[in-house]
Amino acid sequence: MQEEMESRPWEQFEEFLETEDADALRQLIDELPTSEIARSLSRLSPDDQLHVLERLGDKDAAAIIEEIPDPMAVDLLRRIPADNAARLFEEISSDERADLLKEFDTDAAEAILAEMEPEKAIEARLLTGYPSEVAGGLMITEYLWHYETATVGAVLQDFHDHGEIYSDYDVQYTYIVTKDRKLVGVLRLRDLLLAPRHTPVSTIMVKSPLHVTDYTSLTELGAFFDEYELMGVPVTDVDGRLIGIVRREDVDEALIDRSDSDYLKSQGIVGGEELRSMPLWRRSSRRLSWLSINIFLNMIAASVIAVYQDTLSAVIALAVFLPIISDMSGCSGNQAVAVSIRELSLGLIKPFEVLRVWFKEVAVGLINGTVLGLLLGTAAWLWKGNGYLGLVVAAAMAINTVVAVSIGGTVPLFLKWLKSDPALASGPILTTITDMCGFLLVLSFATMMLARLQ
Amino acid sequence: MQEEMESRPWEQFEEFLETEDADALRQLIDELPTSEIARSLSRLSPDDQLHVLERLGDKDAAAIIEEIPDPMAVDLLRRIPADNAARLFEEISSDERADLLKEFDTDAAEAILAEMEPEKAIEARLLTGYPSEVAGGLMITEYLWHYETATVGAVLQDFHDHGEIYSDYDVQYTYIVTKDRKLVGVLRLRDLLLAPRHTPVSTIMVKSPLHVTDYTSLTELGAFFDEYELMGVPVTDVDGRLIGIVRREDVDEALIDRSDSDYLKSQGIVGGEELRSMPLWRRSSRRLSWLSINIFLNMIAASVIAVYQDTLSAVIALAVFLPIISDMSGCSGNQAVAVSIRELSLGLIKPFEVLRVWFKEVAVGLINGTVLGLLLGTAAWLWKGNGYLGLVVAAAMAINTVVAVSIGGTVPLFLKWLKSDPALASGPILTTITDMCGFLLVLSFATMMLARLQ
Repeated sequence: MQEEMESRPWEQFEEFLETEDADALRQLIDELPTSEIARSLSRLSPDDQLHVLERLGDKDAAAIIEEIPDPMAVDLLRRIPADNAARLFEEISSDERADLLKEFDTDAAEAILAEMEPEKAIEARLLTGYPSEVAGGLMITEYLWHYETATVGAVLQDFHDHGEIYSDYDVQYTYIVTKDRKLVGVLRLRDLLLAPRHTPVSTIMVKSPLHVTDYTSLTELGAFFDEYELMGVPVTDVDGRLIGIVRREDVDEALIDRSDSDYLKSQGIVGGEELRSMPLWRRSSRRLSWLSINIFLNMIAASVIAVYQDTLSAVIALAVFLPIISDMSGCSGNQAVAVSIRELSLGLIKPFEVLRVWFKEVAVGLINGTVLGLLLGTAAWLWKGNGYLGLVVAAAMAINTVVAVSIGGTVPLFLKWLKSDPALASGPILTTITDMCGFLLVLSFATMMLARLQ
Repeated sequence: MQEEMESRPWEQFEEFLETEDADALRQLIDELPTSEIARSLSRLSPDDQLHVLERLGDKDAAAIIEEIPDPMAVDLLRRIPADNAARLFEEISSDERADLLKEFDTDAAEAILAEMEPEKAIEARLLTGYPSEVAGGLMITEYLWHYETATVGAVLQDFHDHGEIYSDYDVQYTYIVTKDRKLVGVLRLRDLLLAPRHTPVSTIMVKSPLHVTDYTSLTELGAFFDEYELMGVPVTDVDGRLIGIVRREDVDEALIDRSDSDYLKSQGIVGGEELRSMPLWRRSSRRLSWLSINIFLNMIAASVIAVYQDTLSAVIALAVFLPIISDMSGCSGNQAVAVSIRELSLGLIKPFEVLRVWFKEVAVGLINGTVLGLLLGTAAWLWKGNGYLGLVVAAAMAINTVVAVSIGGTVPLFLKWLKSDPALASGPILTTITDMCGFLLVLSFATMMLARLQ
């Protein structure tokens, strides 16, 4: 294990590139697990990364493009001439192809589409036209369909005739359509096993099958697959025509991406995923765009302290407690944010249920605020031997905890209601308000009790 | 939409419970999407929740248990007598059953297992013996298998004979085993379609099929399904005997759970998911356990300020900048934490690659620290008209940003290396160190320049 952990397979990549040994390279890639291929590629120079793809041939190169993280794949594809990129794109599955194409500028995407087989280009245009988080953006176009007039024998014959093409598909069903491609049924392969060959498919198919429309949302798709033990669901357009299949695995993958992206956004990684193999300026500027908003919000919040300079000069011990109250309120508030974002994504609360959430949070805030206030107040009292200092600090901590959980619990609901992204904006809104409020509470209480604090 | 959003289906639940109209209740549940059922149940009193399950019958009740979030399901099941709970558990799929049983105390779990059908109880004991994040803990035991000596005709006959049982399974393959259940092959149903009935399955099966062992980790399973377009993989024990199947969908679900749980932990929701339908004391005490550690860490960090009280009294303006530097360093550091956790879970970095990560972070930290330092320093200078104050603040902000990203980037690797949970502990470690360091930088620089700051 230790040995494997410290392996540096990219050194072998470099070696095979130097010796131009394409077979050894291909064998190495076959043997490496996906994550090691991605790790190795990220350690090679940009030119060497391209050389690896060139040496491999389109099919193998496309397989790698599909397996490495999207931001890395897009970076690689951007540096390939449009005609070569088009050949690679033709080998990539329809949904992944659309996801990657969306990351290109319109001009670059058009240049690639122009070089692709017309049929695949039309399909790619259809799929890239949808947002990523609706059925149209998640569906694949590789699926089986037959006309409702066919017999079991004809379908089986079609399988024999097109076995090679279909073997690339993930076949468990064939979808049954009218002559204008309206979806009317679905036929399980295992039901084909049991039926006599002359049976019309329309008599053994499941009629009016479950389906979703092209604009069904990711959340609804997640709920759909929770409810039904299906591996895929057909997608119809507004006229009921079959246009694709959304597979359970692609919905699951999109849900994983959404969770990961919520996590990254809550930590201030915005504008897409960051990998350390990306150019320095891009990593730095993306992070800065977030930090510079925050520093201004921080300055606004801290300006409250400036207003109370005289109180602070008189009782300098307060300066010790300001960062503690700011930080602890942030912690309490972030807990409430996390629970709200989680309940929203589970569908357990709706954006209009602000009052319910607020009551639930106030109850927790009162208990936790009291405990934290007592802890901090006692510490202040013991440190300075002044019970009034303890009282000021305890009251401010307690009240501000209630404020923090109230804001933290409800802001995600408001943001969701405004169709904003709760994971992105909840944190900065929360900390700015609770910081201001916390500073104001400590310093105004202290001003009121100034005579007893000195 | 508006109408649907403001619906309160739990009022109908209450109504049907009062009128004891089990059919209406069942119909309502059939019509409601999963998330609405969970939302409604969470709005009912604990007694009414139980009454809903009782009215439904085991099969329907089990379906609901499987669909609602796990913590909610466990709370419900805990309040049911062991014999009733056992009947419900028998209807739940094997992997979900094991996940739920793990949440019970040993005694309670044993009481339920004792009431279950012996065969299912043995199976449940096997599955609950594995940690949740290895193949043994994720596998299902509902799958088809046949002996290597069978013919295609015998397998097809077996399908016909057991169609009803198998129709509950998610059948695409049958697994071929030796007489002592060692896995030797896998047979795709569609290959059965094409083969003459007298063919021995051993001649058309895929020999030495891909498989994993019972202790294969979730990360490895994720990489496996990324690499191979399969819907499931057989699991063997240490002797090569087939003991279950891990389905792609269950691995995906576990990966979603892990991402969600990383997000929650990073926000201070620890010890399992919190839903607002849980009892107040549990919500409050879980959050407090986290907050009380943090408040002590905060007090330690802030004690640095106490040491420099004299400097602070002399230049009270510094008190405004302490919380800003603390907060901004936290922001910069958290960005680095998030990128490291992400790269670790993608397998792009290994825990021993601390130096690589550190260099990459220092580069970003130097740029971002300079920009943030200039912003904050300029603000300080303009506010007080004292360039030296600006200098002190700018230098402290810049240096502490480099410190923060260094710690934020590398701490998750150290924690991973120590087999601790990076998502849980990185945040508190980061903020404690960067707070201390930030306070120390501002106040020691100010002490050095005290004459010029007054």
